[in-house]
This record gives sequence, C-alpha cells and structure tokens, in this order.
Amino acid sequence: MKKITVHAPGTVANLVCGFDILGLALQDPCDVMTLERTDTPGLTIRHLDDHGLPETPEKNVAGVSLLSLMAALDEPIGLHMTIEKKIKPGSGIGSSAASAAGSVAAANALLGNPFSKDQLVQFAMNGEKLATGVKHADNIAPCLMGGVTLIRSIHPLDIVSITPPPLYVTLVHPQIEVRTADARQILKKQILLKDAIKQWGNIAGLVAGLMKQDYELISRSLEDVLIEPIRSILIPEFSKVKQRSLAAGALGGGISGSGPSIFMLSKDEATAKAIESEMAAIFTGTGIPFSTYVTTINNQGVIIHELS
Amino acid sequence: MKKITVHAPGTVANLVCGFDILGLALQDPCDVMTLERTDTPGLTIRHLDDHGLPETPEKNVAGVSLLSLMAALDEPIGLHMTIEKKIKPGSGIGSSAASAAGSVAAANALLGNPFSKDQLVQFAMNGEKLATGVKHADNIAPCLMGGVTLIRSIHPLDIVSITPPPLYVTLVHPQIEVRTADARQILKKQILLKDAIKQWGNIAGLVAGLMKQDYELISRSLEDVLIEPIRSILIPEFSKVKQRSLAAGALGGGISGSGPSIFMLSKDEATAKAIESEMAAIFTGTGIPFSTYVTTINNQGVIIHELS
Repeated sequence: MKKITVHAPGTVANLVCGFDILGLALQDPCDVMTLERTDTPGLTIRHLDDHGLPETPEKNVAGVSLLSLMAALDEPIGLHMTIEKKIKPGSGIGSSAASAAGSVAAANALLGNPFSKDQLVQFAMNGEKLATGVKHADNIAPCLMGGVTLIRSIHPLDIVSITPPPLYVTLVHPQIEVRTADARQILKKQILLKDAIKQWGNIAGLVAGLMKQDYELISRSLEDVLIEPIRSILIPEFSKVKQRSLAAGALGGGISGSGPSIFMLSKDEATAKAIESEMAAIFTGTGIPFSTYVTTINNQGVIIHELS
Repeated sequence: MKKITVHAPGTVANLVCGFDILGLALQDPCDVMTLERTDTPGLTIRHLDDHGLPETPEKNVAGVSLLSLMAALDEPIGLHMTIEKKIKPGSGIGSSAASAAGSVAAANALLGNPFSKDQLVQFAMNGEKLATGVKHADNIAPCLMGGVTLIRSIHPLDIVSITPPPLYVTLVHPQIEVRTADARQILKKQILLKDAIKQWGNIAGLVAGLMKQDYELISRSLEDVLIEPIRSILIPEFSKVKQRSLAAGALGGGISGSGPSIFMLSKDEATAKAIESEMAAIFTGTGIPFSTYVTTINNQGVIIHELS
C-alpha cells in the first residue's frame, strides 16, 4: 500500500462530570487526511483547507505526531500528508486531536499496523502538546478508538473503552476564541472534598449509566459542580443554552472540552433537532457567528479507507 | 405472619477510591435479628449478645430505625426485637448499618412490604445517624441490597446497584478503637484538583472493571491518593498488611469503612486464605487482639427467613 485516506472524527472531552478523564467520538464532523509514501525520506504536509495552519511538520500537530511515530521506526521513510480540516480549530470539539490521532492511525495502517493503540496515543499526545501545552489523551483516545473512553491514568497510560447506548449529540459552536490555556488557568487548584465526593458520585453514576444503557441514570449523573460553574463564564449564553436544551428534552450536556462549543445528549433525533433549534434561536441575534451539528456517537474511531 | 428472623450482613464501605459512595455486602459475618408483633403498641428490644449495647429503643440503632419506620405507618403497632450481634461494634465492617438495615428489612417483610428500598434506606439512615453522627448510606445500601452499591447522591437519594464478578474478601479486625468521628475529623476539607482527578479516574475505572468483570482493571483502580494516606496512620500495621497482601496476590484493598478493619479482594479462595495467613502473622506478636475472616460477596442483601 502506498496511499491511504482516513476520516478522523471530532470528539467531546470531559463529558460534564468527567473532567480530564472521559471523552466521546462524534460521527460528524470529521477531518479528511490522505497519507502517501514518498521516495525521499522525511515528511511534507499540505493543508487543503483555509484555516491558515502551519505546514512545517515541526509546527503542525499532525506533523509532530507523525515525526514522533517515524522516530520509532527502524529506518527512515518518506511521507506526504494532505489534510482537509473540517473540524474548526479552536472549536472545542477536538480539532487538534483529530489531526494528531488521524495522522498516526493513517501511518500505522499504511505501514501494516506495527504499533499498538497505546503507542499511537503516545505519539499523538506529542501533537496535542504542541496545540495545548499539555499531553492529554481525553480527545485522542475517543478519536482513535471510538465510543466513550475513560483515561483512568496518563502515567502509566490506562485507557478503558466504554460502549455507550445509542445517543444523539447536538452541538453549537459560537465562533469566539476560548484558549485552552486560559480555560485551564481560571480553574481553582484546590477544591472542597465534599464537592469532589459529589463529582465522583456523578462520574461513577455516568459510567454505570452508560454501561447499563440506563438513560435516566445518565441524565441524573450529567452534573458538574466543580468545573462548569467556573468555565461557563467564558462561554456566551451558556446557561440559557443549557436551560432551554434541558427543557427541550436533553438528557444533559455542558461545555465540550474547554469550549466554546456546547454539547447536549439526547435519546432520539427529534429531540436532538429540537435542541438544535433552541441553540440557533439563542445565538441568532447575538451577533456571534455560530454553527450547529446534530450527530450520533462514532463507535469506530478513525475510519480507514484503503486506497492503493 | 407474626414473627420473622433475618440475617443482616456486614459491609465494607468506601472500597478504596470510592470514599463515601461505594460499598459491598459480605457473606459473613451477619447479625441475626428476630422481630415479632406484640399486642401492646410500642417497641421493645433485647440483645442476645454481650456487647453492652443499650436496649432502650431511642438509644439503640435498630430501635431508632424501627421507630422511624413505625412513625410512617397509619396506625400504631407493637413490635419486639431480639438481636444477636455477630458483627462487632466499632469494627469498621458496618455493625451499626446491619442493625439499622436488618431491623427495617425485617419489619417491612413482617408487615407485607409496604415500603420501597429507598424508604427503608431513609429509615435506616436515622439509625446510622445515632451511631456515627452522620446520615450516610454507604453501608446501609449494600446491607439491604447486596452486591456493590453506588450512592450517587444522598439528597436526593440515588442508589445504583452494581453486580460484581465473583470476589473473595479477606478481612482483619485489629481490636483497637477508631472513632468514626475522629477518622472523619483528620481528613482535609480542601484537596488538590489534580488529586481529585486521579481519584475519579480510579472510581470510574473501578465501576467499569466491576461491570466488565475485568479483574486487572479492578486491581489497577484500587488506589486511593486522598483518604488512605491520611487515615491509615490510625490503623496499626496498615502498610505492612497492604504490602504483604498484594505480594500474596490480592487484587487490592484498604481500610474497611473508617477502620480499624482492613480488607483485601482476591480472585480465588487460595489467595484469600494466603492473605489471611499474612494478616495473622503480622498481628500475632503485636499484642493487639485481632480476628480475621475469609468470605465472599453477598449478592442478596438482608436475608429474610420467614417463620410464623
């Protein structure tokens, strides 16, 4: 095989009460990435989109991830990657993770799968570090593996796949910038033990609810007493979106990653679309450009299309 | 029916990383309680053991729980209860919860099950409050329902049953007094967010591991970075017991409730017995009287024996 195309899905990290440990993969949007072997050793990258991302491999998230994978090979190879980024950078739905995870998944498939999923996560985390300053895996893992993933631990890496019941996801992306670094900086370093206990009751409830396919339990567990009250101040119209989504029948939801996108989960498509209408109604008239998505959970992860 | 006998099991609360939210029920030891209807309205209690517990209903954990249930009935009834307490008070394996949960489960069965499980938990929590000063349900819920229970929330009460895989439990009870109030008081009210994140990764991992019947994941998740490092100083030989139990093949374990008992989980009986030998070897020669148990998980909760 000399050339491969992959679809790398957007992802929602944190999942309300699962700060830094939970994430899920979306059917849409996906980045489209094509990787081909070249005769000249080294890596070249070309973006087919207009997001103005750097094409120098060392400055590109996919580039850094691929270079880290290539360094683990026995001998130098030549690769050329084209990226059509459909997940907007800075949207909070795992744009950098899709570049990082999609590129290494493509390379692994192109090379005959020499690396394990855990190794791919490690390579891709180097890309995430370039984008966010932190080696985190809560977008990379669901992007690579699909479904809902739990990062039980980063050192050592311990990723647990959780198969969710069918769920619809409605997202709104208000096009303002929330820097991940800012969103992280405003968090309190110290928290109350009693709040932490409430949070881990909800996390345990959410994991149990997903695995039992108990929508009511999922809904009751989608509560965040620690992060959302602080971070939501960075997200325009957050409480209005949440209130009206719940009134429209959402199971629950919150900030996607560190924002600015807001996601809501629901059991059926009609509810998911009603939530989308509420979101659109709220942002129309604010003057803030926005886009909305209604999608489902991607249980596959990066989708590999073999080419030639 | 005029008379009923129940077995109310001991329980292990907290389960290492599940502070204040998780608990499991044991096959052994169990309190034996007999409840009979009498013609004179009111409640009388007699202890068949020599623990010196008060028999005045208002000062007795089972008594307070039963009075709370009786107050919810439409008309006054007469009850007499005898209790043979085989779970030592102050052992940290849910002695007061067994009194509280056993008594209300017996009364509910005797009266034709007028109350739901959640109502029984509420009645029994009044008994727990008498014993520990706090209305907590992490021993009561597994005692009543069996298996592993998650208290997602106390207000409103939200109890989730989790069916564990087959597990052996080894316990050692060093007979020193650790007051629950003391064990609670030495905890820090504020904790680091990064430690809380580690803890909720482990809790999520433990719930997933139990539900997936993944012993390795259970083992990796049985880690407590917050409570154990503080509370274990109240428990003699704690680190030695833990180290040698793990070396003998334990999946993991820690302080049972707020101590002084220490529990260890394992996959098979031979390992559970090897752990018991290690525990006994450690406490023999310390001069501290101790007892050990090897048992399994009780998946039934309070066992009702109908009599007449």
